[in-house]
Amino acid sequence: MTTPRTDLYLDDFKPGDRFEGRGYTFTESEIIDFALRYDPQPIHIDVEAAKAGPFGGLIASGFQSLAITFRLIYQTGWFSSASLGGPGMDNLRWHKPVRPGDTLRAFADVKEVRPSKSKPDRGLLIYELSAVNQSGETVMTATLMSFLKRRRDP
Amino acid sequence: MTTPRTDLYLDDFKPGDRFEGRGYTFTESEIIDFALRYDPQPIHIDVEAAKAGPFGGLIASGFQSLAITFRLIYQTGWFSSASLGGPGMDNLRWHKPVRPGDTLRAFADVKEVRPSKSKPDRGLLIYELSAVNQSGETVMTATLMSFLKRRRDP
Repeated sequence: MTTPRTDLYLDDFKPGDRFEGRGYTFTESEIIDFALRYDPQPIHIDVEAAKAGPFGGLIASGFQSLAITFRLIYQTGWFSSASLGGPGMDNLRWHKPVRPGDTLRAFADVKEVRPSKSKPDRGLLIYELSAVNQSGETVMTATLMSFLKRRRDP
Repeated sequence: MTTPRTDLYLDDFKPGDRFEGRGYTFTESEIIDFALRYDPQPIHIDVEAAKAGPFGGLIASGFQSLAITFRLIYQTGWFSSASLGGPGMDNLRWHKPVRPGDTLRAFADVKEVRPSKSKPDRGLLIYELSAVNQSGETVMTATLMSFLKRRRDP
C-alpha cells in the first residue's frame, strides 16, 4: 500500500502521500523508565496505584507515545538530509491508553506542502502523524510541521 | 509572585492562575541519550554533524524539551490526587533551540476551567505550558488539557 521512499526533499512530497513505519512493543519496563524521568505520575510508574486509577492499570505517558511514534516514522528514512527542524505541532490527541504489551505502528499522511516565499531553498511539510495498536485502534493523532530543504536540481 | 499551592482539584483553579516550576539544566549527555532512543536525528545525537547543520551545533529534541517542561510543572505538586489523564495538546511551538548548558524554567498559566456537564465529578483544566531559558527567552509554548476530579466538599 505504501512504497518505500527515502531521503526525500520538500519537492518529493504531495498531499495524500502515506508513509508507514514498523511496529514497536511497549514494555512495562520501558514505560516506567521513561515516566520516572519525564512524566512521573503514578499511573505511569506505580503498577499498584495505577490499578486503582482511572485506567485500571499502568499506561504509557502520552509524551512517550508521541516520541516513539515520531521515531518509528523518522526511521523509515523518509527525510534525513533535507531536515531543518520543526516549528511545532497542533491537534495532538490521545484517543486510547497505551498499555504494557501493546504494539504500535506509525503512519504519516501528508496534508500540505508549502514552499517558503521568503526562502526559496526550503519550505514546510505538514503531515498527520498517527499511531495504531495491534487491535487496529488509533491511539494517537497529531498534526506536525517540518521545515525541509528543496532539491537544488528538481 | 506565585504562591505554592499543591494537590489541587478542578475547583481550586481559576483563569489567570500562574504556577512556576524549578529549573533544569540540559546536558549534552542527556540530550544525546534521549534522542538516541526517541528522536535520533543527527542534530540531536551527532555533535560533528550538528555543527554543519541549521543550528550550528547540537540541540535538544523538541519532544525532550516538552516532556521536561511538563515534568518541571508536574513536580510542583500542583495536581496529583485529582489527575485523570489528558486528552491532548494544541499549539505546540518551539520558538528557540535548546542547547547543552541551557537551563529551562517552566510556567503554567491557567486559561480555562471547564466542569463536565455529563460527569459532575470531574472537568477539564486548560493551561498554557511554557519554558523560559537562562536569558529570559521563551523557548517553547503549548496549550495542554488535563481532566481533573472535583472536590467532593467544595
